Amino acid sequence: MKKVHSLTGMIDLIGSKVGKNNIADKIFYTETILKNIFESYSISEIRTPSLEDTNLFKRSVGDTSDIVNKELYSFLDKNDKSITLRPEGTASVIRSIIEKKIDNESHKLWYLGPMWRYERPQKGRYRQFNQAGVEMLGYSEGLAELEIVSMICSIIRKLKIEDPILKINHLGDRDSKQKFCIALVDFLKPLATKLDERDLKRLDANPLRILDSKNPKTLEILKEAPKIKDYLSNKSLGTLELIKSTFSNECNIEIDHNLVRGLDYYTGFVFEAVSSNLGAQDAFLGGGRYDDLCHELGGKELPAIGMAIGIERLASLAKSIEIPKTLVSLIIISSKIEPKAYKIAHKLRSISKSINIDVQLSDGSLKSKLRRANKDNAAYALIIGEEELESETVIIKPLLDKNSEQTVMSFNEIESFIKEID
Amino acid sequence: MKKVHSLTGMIDLIGSKVGKNNIADKIFYTETILKNIFESYSISEIRTPSLEDTNLFKRSVGDTSDIVNKELYSFLDKNDKSITLRPEGTASVIRSIIEKKIDNESHKLWYLGPMWRYERPQKGRYRQFNQAGVEMLGYSEGLAELEIVSMICSIIRKLKIEDPILKINHLGDRDSKQKFCIALVDFLKPLATKLDERDLKRLDANPLRILDSKNPKTLEILKEAPKIKDYLSNKSLGTLELIKSTFSNECNIEIDHNLVRGLDYYTGFVFEAVSSNLGAQDAFLGGGRYDDLCHELGGKELPAIGMAIGIERLASLAKSIEIPKTLVSLIIISSKIEPKAYKIAHKLRSISKSINIDVQLSDGSLKSKLRRANKDNAAYALIIGEEELESETVIIKPLLDKNSEQTVMSFNEIESFIKEID
Repeated sequence: MKKVHSLTGMIDLIGSKVGKNNIADKIFYTETILKNIFESYSISEIRTPSLEDTNLFKRSVGDTSDIVNKELYSFLDKNDKSITLRPEGTASVIRSIIEKKIDNESHKLWYLGPMWRYERPQKGRYRQFNQAGVEMLGYSEGLAELEIVSMICSIIRKLKIEDPILKINHLGDRDSKQKFCIALVDFLKPLATKLDERDLKRLDANPLRILDSKNPKTLEILKEAPKIKDYLSNKSLGTLELIKSTFSNECNIEIDHNLVRGLDYYTGFVFEAVSSNLGAQDAFLGGGRYDDLCHELGGKELPAIGMAIGIERLASLAKSIEIPKTLVSLIIISSKIEPKAYKIAHKLRSISKSINIDVQLSDGSLKSKLRRANKDNAAYALIIGEEELESETVIIKPLLDKNSEQTVMSFNEIESFIKEID
Repeated sequence: MKKVHSLTGMIDLIGSKVGKNNIADKIFYTETILKNIFESYSISEIRTPSLEDTNLFKRSVGDTSDIVNKELYSFLDKNDKSITLRPEGTASVIRSIIEKKIDNESHKLWYLGPMWRYERPQKGRYRQFNQAGVEMLGYSEGLAELEIVSMICSIIRKLKIEDPILKINHLGDRDSKQKFCIALVDFLKPLATKLDERDLKRLDANPLRILDSKNPKTLEILKEAPKIKDYLSNKSLGTLELIKSTFSNECNIEIDHNLVRGLDYYTGFVFEAVSSNLGAQDAFLGGGRYDDLCHELGGKELPAIGMAIGIERLASLAKSIEIPKTLVSLIIISSKIEPKAYKIAHKLRSISKSINIDVQLSDGSLKSKLRRANKDNAAYALIIGEEELESETVIIKPLLDKNSEQTVMSFNEIESFIKEID
C-alpha cells in the first residue's frame, strides 16, 4: 500500500534511550536546560495557541519584515478567515496580555514551542522549527537589560557553547531615534533612484530597517550615511557600557552599531548572540527592547524587553549532554506471562527517583536481551528465569563495571538494593 | 487602536509564579509528572510535526470516525494540497517509523503536544488542546498490556486522581473478531432500514463501530444483537482477567464488553479511564492494541499498543500541585543601577539547584516590593539599600516563618547561606 509522507520542511525527532548525540536528544536536552534556567530566574510559563489571526503578525512583526513579506504560513480556514501559524512568539504573548486585561501589570514570561515559516526549506531552516523565548513586560530600561544578559550568560555556560559573541547595540531613545531617522531619510531621499523596491518601501515605513539591507548597492550608499552612534544619548551609550562591563568576565560582548535586528518593533537595546560554528546564519538567539508594541496592538503603554532562542541552532552548538538517570533492564525469561515477576518493575518504579526501568517486552533469548541491555547502556540487568521465579529471586548483573560479579537476591531484598543505587 | 483577538476555541495558558491552582499551573504540573513517569518506564520522546497530509488521518483514524467525518482541522496550503493539523498522535508516530524505515524494530515512544479539532467549541472542548501518549511498537499481546496498565496506575497515584475507574475490554483476536462481525452484520442487515445514515455507513466499513452509536434507536436494536464476549477466545478472556488481577490492589478495573473506542484502528485489548468528576465526557485517557495499523499505512506488520491522555481533562482532576522550589526575592533600593548588587543574583543562580531567584526589576518602595515578595510566596527577601551597598551587606528577611528575625550578612557570606537552604 502506498505510504504517506511527512510534509516538506517538517522533520520528526526521535530520542534515543541513552541520550546518544543525535539532534533529537540534543534538542530535548537543550529545552530542559532552558526551562530550568527560566524557572531559576523566577519566570512563569505562557503558552499561546499555534494559530492566530493573520492581522496580528502584520501589525506586530511588521510589513517591511521578511517574515511578513515572504514567509508567513497562512491559509484560509473553513470560514474564509485568514489564519497564520505563528512565525514567532512575542506578538501572541502581547496579544494575550492585552486580551486578559493584565497589560497594566509587570510580568516575566517564557514560552517554548513550534513556530512556522513557509519558506523554501534549506540547510538548517525548516518550515516547522522550535523557539523558546522570554518576555519581561512592564520594566523600563535598566535592571531588566542586565537580567536578560545574565540569562544569556547562563545559557552559554550551561550548554558549554564554544566561542560565542554577544553583539549589542542601542537604537536610541524616542528623541534620538527620531532625529537619526530624519537625518537618514534626508540623506537617502536624493539617492532614492539607486535603492531597490524593498529598501524604498522601508524608507517610507521604517527607515531604520534599511540598515538591515542585504543589497550591496544599498550597503555601499550606507557607508556615507549618518551613523546611529552619533545620535545616541549619553544614557543610551552608558547602558551599553554598563552591560558590557557587568558581564565582561563571563561572555565576549561586542558593541556593534550596525545591529538593527530583522523585526519592525524594536526600540532601545538590541542584541544577538552568534557563533562562528553556525556558518552564514550565525545567530542562535536575539532580541531587544520593544516599548511601543503593546500600545500599537491596542493595549496600554507597557515597556518591554525580550529574547527569542532558536532551539535547533542552539542545540547544534551544545557540547555535552548529561543524563543523570541510571537505566536498569528487567529481563524475564518465561513461557507465559508472570505477574509476580512483572510486579517487581511496577514496585521499583513507584519507589525510585533517579532510576529508569526498562522491562524487556519482546520474546527472545537471555542472550539477545542482554545484548539489548548493553546496547541501551543499562547499568544493571535484573534477570528472572523459571528457576528464579520458583525461588522468588532475581539475578543482578552489573553491566557497566565489567569487574563486578553478579549476585542473587530475593524479591524482597531487591527494593533495598534499588534504594541504595537511587 | 483595534485589538486583535485570539481565535475561537483557542486559549492562552499563563502560569503563576507560585503554582497557584489555576488551570495553566495544573496543566504544566500534569505534563511534568507524565514526562517523569514516561522516562521512568524507559520510554523515549518522539516529536512529529503538527501538520500532516490529510490522507494520513483518513487512512488511519478512519472514515467512519467522528474525527475524520466532522472534526478535522484541514485547509489547502499555497500549493492547493490538503493539509491537516493533527487531531491525534498515533498516526503520525506510525508514519514516522515507516518513513525512517525502522518499522522492523521495537520502540517505546511517548509524545506530548497540541492537537486540533475543528469542532464547535463547548465546555472543556477546545479547537486546540493538549494530548500526551505512549506507543509500544513491536510487542505482541502480553507484557506490553501490563506495562501500559502499570503506567495508568502510576499516573492515577502520582496525580492523586479520586475515584477513577479503568474500563477494559477485548475486541478479540483476528479470528474471533471476524466471526463476531459476520454475526453482527447478519443480525443488522435485515434491520438496516431502521439505522441512520451514519450507522449504515459503519455497517459497511467497520461494523464493530456501530456498538459506539449514540442513536437511541440503534442502541435499542443492539440489545438483541450478538455480544462480543460470546465470541472471545479463552486467551482473550484470560488476558482481561490477568490484567484485572495483577493491578486489583491499585486501581478499580472493570471489564466492560460494550467498550469499543472511537477510532477505527483498534484490535484486541482496549481501555478507557473515566472519572465521575468529569461529567458527560468522562474519559481522561484511553487506548488499546492496534496490530494492523502499521501495515495498513504501508509499513511492515508491527504489533502495537498505545494510549492517549487528554491533558486538560487529567489536569482538571489532579488534586495537588507540589512545587519543590524555594523562591527568594532580591530587592535592590537604589537611585541608579548597581551592577555590584545585581551580580549577587547572577552568582546565586549559578550555584543553586532548587532555589528560584526573583530580582524585582520595577522601581518602587521597599514596602511595595516586600508586598510583592509576600504575594509571590517568597521564602526570603534579600534587601540591599544604599547603606548595604556601601557596606557590601545584605539584609535577609524570612517571609514564611513570621517568628524568625531578619539578619545581616556580607556579600561573601550570602553564598553559603544559599547553599544551606538549597
